[in-house]
Amino acid sequence: MHEKSHSPLDDIRAHIAGMPGPDTEAERIARERDGQLTKPPGALGRLEKIAFWLAAWQGRNPPAAERIEVAVYAANHGVAKQGVSAFPPEVTEQMVANFRAGGAAINQICKTFGLGLKVHELALSRPTGDITCEPAMSERECTATIAYGMEAVGERPDVLCLGEMGIANTTIASALLCALHGGEPEDWVGPGTGVDEAGLARKADAIRRALEFHGPYLNDPLTILTRLGGREFAAIVGAIIAARHARVPVILDGFMVTAAASVLHALMPEALDHCIAGHVSAEPAHRRALEKIGKRPLLDLDMRLGEGSGAGVAAAIIKAAAATHGGMATFADAGVSEKNE
Amino acid sequence: MHEKSHSPLDDIRAHIAGMPGPDTEAERIARERDGQLTKPPGALGRLEKIAFWLAAWQGRNPPAAERIEVAVYAANHGVAKQGVSAFPPEVTEQMVANFRAGGAAINQICKTFGLGLKVHELALSRPTGDITCEPAMSERECTATIAYGMEAVGERPDVLCLGEMGIANTTIASALLCALHGGEPEDWVGPGTGVDEAGLARKADAIRRALEFHGPYLNDPLTILTRLGGREFAAIVGAIIAARHARVPVILDGFMVTAAASVLHALMPEALDHCIAGHVSAEPAHRRALEKIGKRPLLDLDMRLGEGSGAGVAAAIIKAAAATHGGMATFADAGVSEKNE
Repeated sequence: MHEKSHSPLDDIRAHIAGMPGPDTEAERIARERDGQLTKPPGALGRLEKIAFWLAAWQGRNPPAAERIEVAVYAANHGVAKQGVSAFPPEVTEQMVANFRAGGAAINQICKTFGLGLKVHELALSRPTGDITCEPAMSERECTATIAYGMEAVGERPDVLCLGEMGIANTTIASALLCALHGGEPEDWVGPGTGVDEAGLARKADAIRRALEFHGPYLNDPLTILTRLGGREFAAIVGAIIAARHARVPVILDGFMVTAAASVLHALMPEALDHCIAGHVSAEPAHRRALEKIGKRPLLDLDMRLGEGSGAGVAAAIIKAAAATHGGMATFADAGVSEKNE
Repeated sequence: MHEKSHSPLDDIRAHIAGMPGPDTEAERIARERDGQLTKPPGALGRLEKIAFWLAAWQGRNPPAAERIEVAVYAANHGVAKQGVSAFPPEVTEQMVANFRAGGAAINQICKTFGLGLKVHELALSRPTGDITCEPAMSERECTATIAYGMEAVGERPDVLCLGEMGIANTTIASALLCALHGGEPEDWVGPGTGVDEAGLARKADAIRRALEFHGPYLNDPLTILTRLGGREFAAIVGAIIAARHARVPVILDGFMVTAAASVLHALMPEALDHCIAGHVSAEPAHRRALEKIGKRPLLDLDMRLGEGSGAGVAAAIIKAAAATHGGMATFADAGVSEKNE
């Protein structure tokens, strides 16, 4: 007799299933306050909706966006040896050093808007398996990395921005999205950091071989993450789950973070209700990936850098939303006449 | 014998004709620096282009976005008596008091991003003429108000955001755009602060009557501004001109500011090259108005409040652009490998 064996991923499934819903009372109070502010109803557009969303997922009135943290997860990928990136793999580690020295784009963005920054190196010297011929990770390793990501919200910022760095990881993101949503590899690949036509063909070919190799195992989103993913993707999945439990709304960055989030969406669509898409990047498949998870991006600035840069700029919009909602005078306070009957 | 009389607007025409072009050397230096920064070429998308644009129009390397000022021009309009707004005209003055007391949306946005704010009241107790049956202003008054607007850049901020407040001024903006670009009044009107279908019909009807009444005079953009405009529109025209002369790049706010800028564009399309469209508002004709002047908006957040709020939020993007361009490490500084050959 043989019982179905316990998978280490089952603990993660339990965390996902147990995620709390929105605080509808906090949202109701935010909507009520909004109706009294000195502006025509609806005139702040998405800023108003962001304030309601913050209230619902923070469970707080007024919602806050003072302490915003950017968590960047860096990892290396065995698939890099397939010639899928315009940059050599050592750039991942070099860029981590650049983050620590304050020289990267995300450092300047954090300084500009007063955001905190935490960079997580995920075993850079030990790339994941080459997905064209082996699993990226074992189930145990994937579970451990998700659990690591769950620690990102330990200090409970008001809002968490998620970003990543990892040479060759647009290929991983495309593989995940192709496995989750179907279609041809060509539908999901793009130039990434700047590969040429030949590089693009190598990316699609690597994904096609990976999907063939892992085919029979790709029927469950967490298994797809294990076999085709990478450590930054697993950590981001963990961070999204933990943020929900800790009542921390999340700003997703670009193509990679959206691919990681898509794993959760495939398991349970409402798992991303506490997440907002910070921007749509110039990576062509990002727009389609956002449509699949039903997210309208806040910004559309042709950015395609990763490292949390799009989410970090979007954090400024979130700050404006919280500041207007919390700081504006009401019609009664300011002695302003309301709309004609 | 009768000589062609000198119009007071001719002085303004001279200021417009004398506007300087971009500093192409400053732009070249900015592009050169950008190529050395630790990111794939082009990966910061519009942030990079904004940095080049700032350098070109400030004539400075690196370009700066530390001191950003929001100038809000408030005025009242005779056409308000045609029932074209959802709010009574006294709200203009009440909102000015709200700006001064720090209770409006723009105050919170300025606080969030460290922007300066200056509110200009333009003879609120003396509304302009009702455009359905008289000129909004005399040529002398229009000229004086443009000249007043030219003082806005007196302290030479790094960047100037232009905003407005004025009950009934979406009708004025629609009238200007219809006179400048043609089409039917219905193509250019929208709900503004929130009029219903009947209010919308009154707006279109008022514009139709105004165009009929002033018809023979509407062959020159500055005459259109004089007859169909309003003081905030004239002041904004002046501010745009003066900013160009003072090498201060400009962020345009929403529908009204775009209508004012369109007057200049009709005179000389390159007159707006130092201006960026901060956002596209929810006022339906704003998108078309931006297309007519060839501007792609930075933000699309369904905002429709005016008072410089969209430009103020867009200022955050400008800050991020200047900060990344000026603060990032180069490949050489950071010891990061460049792209594969």
